[in-house]
Amino acid sequence: MDCKKVFLMRAKRKLMQKSMAIRDIISRLALPLLVTASLVGCATPTLRGTGDLGVVIERATGSVQILDTTHRSSLGKVNGLGDLSHASVSYSRDGRYAFVFGRDGGLSKVDLLTQSITHRVIQAGNSIGGAISQDGKLIAVANYEPGGVRIFSVDDLTPIADIPAVGANGKRSKVVGLVDAPGRRFVFSLYDAGEIWVADMHKPQQPILHKFTDVGKEPYDGMITSDGHFYAAGLFGEDGVALLDLWNLQAGVKRTLVQVGRHGEKLPVYKMPHLEGWATTGDLIVLPGVGQHEIILADQNTWQEVARIPVAGQPVFAIARPDNRQVWINFAFPDNETVQVLDLPSRSIVKTLKPGKAVLHLEFTPRGDQVWVSARDDNRIDIYDPETFEHIGRLPADKPSGIFFTSRANRTGL
Amino acid sequence: MDCKKVFLMRAKRKLMQKSMAIRDIISRLALPLLVTASLVGCATPTLRGTGDLGVVIERATGSVQILDTTHRSSLGKVNGLGDLSHASVSYSRDGRYAFVFGRDGGLSKVDLLTQSITHRVIQAGNSIGGAISQDGKLIAVANYEPGGVRIFSVDDLTPIADIPAVGANGKRSKVVGLVDAPGRRFVFSLYDAGEIWVADMHKPQQPILHKFTDVGKEPYDGMITSDGHFYAAGLFGEDGVALLDLWNLQAGVKRTLVQVGRHGEKLPVYKMPHLEGWATTGDLIVLPGVGQHEIILADQNTWQEVARIPVAGQPVFAIARPDNRQVWINFAFPDNETVQVLDLPSRSIVKTLKPGKAVLHLEFTPRGDQVWVSARDDNRIDIYDPETFEHIGRLPADKPSGIFFTSRANRTGL
Repeated sequence: MDCKKVFLMRAKRKLMQKSMAIRDIISRLALPLLVTASLVGCATPTLRGTGDLGVVIERATGSVQILDTTHRSSLGKVNGLGDLSHASVSYSRDGRYAFVFGRDGGLSKVDLLTQSITHRVIQAGNSIGGAISQDGKLIAVANYEPGGVRIFSVDDLTPIADIPAVGANGKRSKVVGLVDAPGRRFVFSLYDAGEIWVADMHKPQQPILHKFTDVGKEPYDGMITSDGHFYAAGLFGEDGVALLDLWNLQAGVKRTLVQVGRHGEKLPVYKMPHLEGWATTGDLIVLPGVGQHEIILADQNTWQEVARIPVAGQPVFAIARPDNRQVWINFAFPDNETVQVLDLPSRSIVKTLKPGKAVLHLEFTPRGDQVWVSARDDNRIDIYDPETFEHIGRLPADKPSGIFFTSRANRTGL
Repeated sequence: MDCKKVFLMRAKRKLMQKSMAIRDIISRLALPLLVTASLVGCATPTLRGTGDLGVVIERATGSVQILDTTHRSSLGKVNGLGDLSHASVSYSRDGRYAFVFGRDGGLSKVDLLTQSITHRVIQAGNSIGGAISQDGKLIAVANYEPGGVRIFSVDDLTPIADIPAVGANGKRSKVVGLVDAPGRRFVFSLYDAGEIWVADMHKPQQPILHKFTDVGKEPYDGMITSDGHFYAAGLFGEDGVALLDLWNLQAGVKRTLVQVGRHGEKLPVYKMPHLEGWATTGDLIVLPGVGQHEIILADQNTWQEVARIPVAGQPVFAIARPDNRQVWINFAFPDNETVQVLDLPSRSIVKTLKPGKAVLHLEFTPRGDQVWVSARDDNRIDIYDPETFEHIGRLPADKPSGIFFTSRANRTGL
C-alpha cells in the first residue's frame, strides 16, 4: 500500500519540522501513527457510490483502470493482474469488487474503492472467463487447461468445488461459454466433447450436473438470454447453434439457426464473434454472422432467421443500446477501425463511425446515455452519446480491450 | 460530525498516556490530527459498495430505513422526510443517493452512506412521484397542487425548470404517471385534462413539450415498458389504456385494451392498481384488472388481450421475477394479507402466500435471488427465496410501504 507509506512519511516529515524534542519521540509515535494510517487506509478511497464505476482491461500491462462514468474520468490503475490478453470481469453484488479472469488462470479480486487487489489465485493453467452466481456468493471460472470449471468463494477466493470436464468420450475437454443462470445454476459448454452441462449449485460443495451430450461439433462460446430463459452455444465444427431451454431441461438441446455458421468457410474467420455480444432485444436476437460480412436477425421465440443485414466487415460484438432500438457492431481485422450502428425498426445501418485503430470492445452505461469504445492500437477509450453520435470524451489507456461497468452486477449472464 | 470529535478525543487520549514530553506538544499536533480526522470523516460511514442497498418507506413516521440485501439487514434509519403516506424513490446514477418524493410536496436527497438528508425542499403542495433523467442530472416531480412538473438539479435540488400543466381546456391539471424516457425525455399524463405530454430536456432550462390531447378520460397513472419503447396510461374515466409509441411520436396516442377497465364498476375499486407494477416479460405484458379479481395478459407487440387469470382479490402490483418466468401479485383490501405467484408458461397460480397484514409492496433483488415484502400492519418486512418460496428473513419496520433497491438506478422508468 504505497499511499499508506506516503501518508506515514508525510506525517513524520511534518513532525521533523517541529522541535528536536519532538524528533526524540518520533519512534514512540510510530505506533499510533500506524494505527491512524490503517484507519485512514489510502487517503484516496473516498466515500462514494459504486453504481457509476467500471474497469477497462489494459492487456499489454496486466492492469485495469478504474472508470467513473459520471465524470467520464479514470480514477486510477491497479497493476499485477497477470496475462490479460483475453480477460473478462464479473462484479460482486454490491458493485465494489471486480473479479478479473486472466488468460493465465489468474483470478483476482480487485477493490474499486481502495484501488487494490484484495485476493489473487492462479487457479489453472489457462482460463477463458467466468461468472458469478445468482446469489453473489460463488465465482466460477472456465478453464482450458486443465479443462473444467473451478468454483470459489467470493469472500476470499477459497476453493469450493472443482468440476473436471470429462466428456462422454472419456477425455478432458476445454470449457467455454460459462454463464450464471437463475435457480443457482452455472451453464457451460465442452468444446472438445461437444456437450453442454448445467451445474446445480444448491449445495455448493456438491454440484449436481445435468449433462447434454452430442449437442454439435465444437461449441466455441455460449450465451444466455437476458431473462435467463435460453442458453445458446455457437458451433464451430458445423453450421448452427445448440439451444437449451433452461425452463425445460427435459426437452434437451435442439439444433437451430443452421444458416449462422461458416457455410464451408467461404471467408476465413479472422476472429470468432463473442456470443456474449449477441443482442437480445425483446423479440429479436441479433447475431454476428461467423466469417460473413453480415448481421443475422432471428426471432427470439422461434430461433428462426428473420433477416440478414450487410455490414462493413466480419462482426465481432453486436451490442444492443439499452433501449433495444439500435445495435452497435464492431469488426474483425482488417475492418477493426470501424463501428456501425444498426437501427432495428428500419433494419438499416444508420451510422458508420471510425473511433480508432483496433476497436476491441464497447460498453453502454446501463440507461444508455453513453457508450465507451476501446481502441487498442490508439491507446485510448472514446466516449460517444449514443443518441446523437457526438464524441463526448476521451481517456488514455494502455492497449485497452474489454470495458466492464458495475451495472453488470445486476444482470444475469454477465 | 460527532464521530470526528470522538476520533480526535481518542487520539488525544492515547497521546496523553505517553510521556509528559508528548503532552507538551499536543497543541502543536492538533492541526495534523484535525487534518487526519477530516480525512477519516465519520467512523460510521463505512467504505462500501452501494449496489446491494435500498430503502423502505416508513409511512407513519416520515422515515426510511436503509437496507442491505447481502446481509438481509437494516443499516439505519433517516428521519425528517415529512408526509410519506404516498411516497416513491429514484436513485442517483452512482447508487449513493435516494431522492424521496413525499405526499406533501417534499423532495429529499438522502445519502445512504452517511445516513443523512443532504438536501430537502418543499417544492409543491401535494405531489405524487418523480423520476430521474437518463443522464442522471435532473430530478422531475409530478405535482397535484399546483398541477405540473418541476425539475431540479440532482446535485443540490436547485430549481431548473417548471412546467405548469395547463391543458387544452385552459385549466391546470393534476399530473400523474411521470417517467423518464430515453432521449433525455420525461413523459407524464394530465389527469383532469386527459392529455399525455412528452418533455424534451436537451436544453434543461427550456423544455420542449409535445402535447397529445384527447387521449381518454382521466388517465390515473402511467408506465413505460422496460426498454423505453411504449408509454401507457391507464384510464379511470373510461375503459382502456392510452398508448404512445415513443419511437414514433408522429403516430400519436392510440386507445387499446379497452377490456381492462372497470366495465361499469361491477366491483367497487378499493385501490387503484399501480401501473408501475405492470410486468413486461419479453413478449407479454401483465396487467392488474381494475376492480376485477383477475390478471390480464396482453401481447406486448400488439397490445391485445391474450388471457385472463382469476386471482384472490383486486390486484394492486403485478411484478415480474427478474427471469420473467413468474409474476408476484399483491391485492387491495380485504385481500391484502395475500400474495399470489403466477407462473407464465403454465398460466396458473402456483403459490399463495400469507406474508402478513396489509401487504403494500414487494421488490426483487435485481437477479432475483430474493424478494422483499412489506406488511404494513404487522410492522415488518419479510424476505422470501423466489425459487423455493422459503422464508429467509424478517426485519422490523414502522408501517412499511414501498421498498426500493439501488438497482433501480440502472433501469429506465423506475
